[in-house]
Amino acid sequence: MAKMMRQVKTLGLLGTGVIGGGWAARALHFGIDVLAADVKPEMEAWIRGAVENAEGALSRLTFAPLPPKGKLSFTTDLAAMARQVDFIQENIPEQLELKQRVLAEVSHHAASDVIIASSTSGLMPSDLQRDMAAPERFLVAHPFNPVYLLPLVELVGGNATSPEALDAASRFFTEIGMHPLKVRREIPGHLTDRLQEALWREILHLVNDGVATTGELDDSIVYGPGLRWAAMGTNLIYHLAGGEPGMRHMLKQFGPCLKWPWTKLEAPELTEQLIDRMVEGTQAQANGRSIREIERLRDDYLVAIQQVLRQYNIGAGSTLRALEERLYERNGAAARAGSGAAAGEDCAQPLRLIETHVRPEWVDYNGHMTDSRYLQVFGDATDALYRSVGVDDAYRQSGRALYAVESHMTHNAEAQALEPLYVTTRVVGVDEKRVHLFHCLHRRRDDALVATGEHIYLHVNSTAKKAAPMDPAVRAKLEKIHTAQAALPAPVQVGRHVGMPRS
Amino acid sequence: MAKMMRQVKTLGLLGTGVIGGGWAARALHFGIDVLAADVKPEMEAWIRGAVENAEGALSRLTFAPLPPKGKLSFTTDLAAMARQVDFIQENIPEQLELKQRVLAEVSHHAASDVIIASSTSGLMPSDLQRDMAAPERFLVAHPFNPVYLLPLVELVGGNATSPEALDAASRFFTEIGMHPLKVRREIPGHLTDRLQEALWREILHLVNDGVATTGELDDSIVYGPGLRWAAMGTNLIYHLAGGEPGMRHMLKQFGPCLKWPWTKLEAPELTEQLIDRMVEGTQAQANGRSIREIERLRDDYLVAIQQVLRQYNIGAGSTLRALEERLYERNGAAARAGSGAAAGEDCAQPLRLIETHVRPEWVDYNGHMTDSRYLQVFGDATDALYRSVGVDDAYRQSGRALYAVESHMTHNAEAQALEPLYVTTRVVGVDEKRVHLFHCLHRRRDDALVATGEHIYLHVNSTAKKAAPMDPAVRAKLEKIHTAQAALPAPVQVGRHVGMPRS
Repeated sequence: MAKMMRQVKTLGLLGTGVIGGGWAARALHFGIDVLAADVKPEMEAWIRGAVENAEGALSRLTFAPLPPKGKLSFTTDLAAMARQVDFIQENIPEQLELKQRVLAEVSHHAASDVIIASSTSGLMPSDLQRDMAAPERFLVAHPFNPVYLLPLVELVGGNATSPEALDAASRFFTEIGMHPLKVRREIPGHLTDRLQEALWREILHLVNDGVATTGELDDSIVYGPGLRWAAMGTNLIYHLAGGEPGMRHMLKQFGPCLKWPWTKLEAPELTEQLIDRMVEGTQAQANGRSIREIERLRDDYLVAIQQVLRQYNIGAGSTLRALEERLYERNGAAARAGSGAAAGEDCAQPLRLIETHVRPEWVDYNGHMTDSRYLQVFGDATDALYRSVGVDDAYRQSGRALYAVESHMTHNAEAQALEPLYVTTRVVGVDEKRVHLFHCLHRRRDDALVATGEHIYLHVNSTAKKAAPMDPAVRAKLEKIHTAQAALPAPVQVGRHVGMPRS
Repeated sequence: MAKMMRQVKTLGLLGTGVIGGGWAARALHFGIDVLAADVKPEMEAWIRGAVENAEGALSRLTFAPLPPKGKLSFTTDLAAMARQVDFIQENIPEQLELKQRVLAEVSHHAASDVIIASSTSGLMPSDLQRDMAAPERFLVAHPFNPVYLLPLVELVGGNATSPEALDAASRFFTEIGMHPLKVRREIPGHLTDRLQEALWREILHLVNDGVATTGELDDSIVYGPGLRWAAMGTNLIYHLAGGEPGMRHMLKQFGPCLKWPWTKLEAPELTEQLIDRMVEGTQAQANGRSIREIERLRDDYLVAIQQVLRQYNIGAGSTLRALEERLYERNGAAARAGSGAAAGEDCAQPLRLIETHVRPEWVDYNGHMTDSRYLQVFGDATDALYRSVGVDDAYRQSGRALYAVESHMTHNAEAQALEPLYVTTRVVGVDEKRVHLFHCLHRRRDDALVATGEHIYLHVNSTAKKAAPMDPAVRAKLEKIHTAQAALPAPVQVGRHVGMPRS
């Protein structure tokens, strides 16, 4: 095989069910073209619908600057797909012989430096790669539903898999926002599904024995251990339970329980009665809501939880934070490479530095964007401006910062959930210690003015906690923008005070 | 036994370890006095430390108005405790004979309408209540660590337990913010620990067989299924995985996997080698952080996740939301019963409507409260004022609302993470469609002025989306406050515009 794996510009999908659709949505969102292949032509409409459906939640996962979205194409010709793409992800039904046959066929059409990965949840890579051409570029890459929101992907190599293929796959999955977990040894079910299976078998027993309903068993997790598992696994949690002596104490104290007959071991028979209980139980939980409705709720909380975990830089939140750092870094590099707003060449107009939209959690009981969120968006615009003139993390770490000392906002039109917005920014004034900015927030659909924000920032020495002159280079860049914009008419809101108009 | 169980004013704790400390912190926070009993006098200092430690996270769980904190007392006399309290929660070591003996003894000192509950994670209530006086008031109430943050409590009755005792216990635990889950039948390990145990046994096997480290196994959950489990259990998740035909399809498709040899059944021997691997693995995960440090991180994300889930009214978020609705309702009732700010009797001073503090997630990269959060706090103060003059959910549902149209803020001093704050509010002006408010945000420790907010609100018909006169009763209440405050000196910030002072 080629020493270097390819840069992935186009992802090929083999099979387009729920998992294939999830892969497509994730890859497209992070700027990768997707060529989906399925022998059934009706799957084209299906996968386009799945991508569209995923985009609602996915678009709220991060507001860091993304590359342009990828392009989605479809073909019923598996071989043609294999010849055109840089990475192939297989998602066909979970049958060993079928997967072996299709993977072998496709492998003869794909160049030997094209990685081929299988989404199988339980089959072993050594079995799957048996009849392939260049089997060293094959691995299992097992994702979790919804693939477009959950970062986990288990990577498992077979006997013939090369370490380079595992590394290259790991880089690609990281690129599209995932957390690749390399599994040391191939075993049926990999790691995660073995753990899920153990829990699932015990659930079936408890329902079968009439001890609990499916809803009660779900509650027994979501109000307790499930909250912990969103960011720490059983091992670290039990380490905490052991107090200061940690895991060793825990094993000593609770080890003997392992021999208690708490759990039933063999799986129960899936009798008609058990099936009915499971089905009736989950229907009661669904409580008239469609699968689509529950999926939307699941997606909403999965996005929100990851955003919360990002603040603590833990679990999926650390994946998201690392992704955003790369995106900002790349965006900064692009801005530095181009002329950029800060260069002052194109800033005789108000600068358009921020594109965003109203996140659902910003909406108040009136169904409108909450007041304080306007100030948050203006704060983001201020940050973007300052970053572009050199006030970045390094600048702040040197003990200098710009603090808001006064703000004035006017509200002019409504913005509802998911409304796309942009902010334009003017530098109204600069002196050695002060910056006077004026932001306008507009709706993207009709450019209507939604709100204005007028702000005074004071430059401070954050160690001494007092006003101090800003870096001359920063001031020069701000003055260049100020001068370029000086000919623009003064906005009516500038210099206005809050008061009751005569009615 | 008495027909009516007591109103719980004082909770008695039997045993004061990690679980006892967690119960104490939760009960005290929600206004219940606690009398902790432990034969070891040194546990008094321990439990006071545990309560103090929990308060950091607990105080951020909800900002709804809480009753005054409960009072914590300690005794080494178990019988004296039993005679003075309204509800006893037992948390002594997990040994059947010990628990039987202590529970029996205590039960002879507690009146028969005092519920006695055990925190046991695995023992059966019928065994525990065997030698008790009035065994019908005994039940298992099994909580999860940290007890002060996780809402789940499993309630299990034994042969002798009365349904009334289960109901009364359920009401008490709901009162202190928990989600009581009644377990239909007593089995060793109740429900949750049977599920956790199944997963734990499989983890031990995978470590024992050298397939994965403890850290990899934790990652296999927290980056994938663990995120889902924060709000939906395996059953509802598998219902979704089945697509529109739901659980029935899922069982048909994946049922056969149950017979695959994915999981090992008997527990592994806890050899020295396995213990070492578990300990070394978790130490690598802890990565030099103390138990206390990891606990703090765990508490932070548990609080933040529950606040996120509240927005979606799902799982632990629905418990939190229901709790807050009760707290606001009760507070409203108390305000209506007393004279209240809105009655205008004591409002010749600025109204002090909001007490809060800087939540850690409000802090920006400078280590200070983010600008937009000031506006959020002022918005909360405005809401509190409006609620007190009759602008509540019912008013808004009638199609009337007050929208912010203009705001002006000044920043005067710093507020850092966890800084306690309060807001004072003045009604600067009112006419039939407009309200002009002025808020001051102060630090509690030194009353320093942190920020001011000046706001104009427009009263609108939210259906017609145009300005409309407010309800005369609402206007009258606002005017009464305005008149009472008219003699106060005008704040210098009122009517000020944003601009660059000459330096």
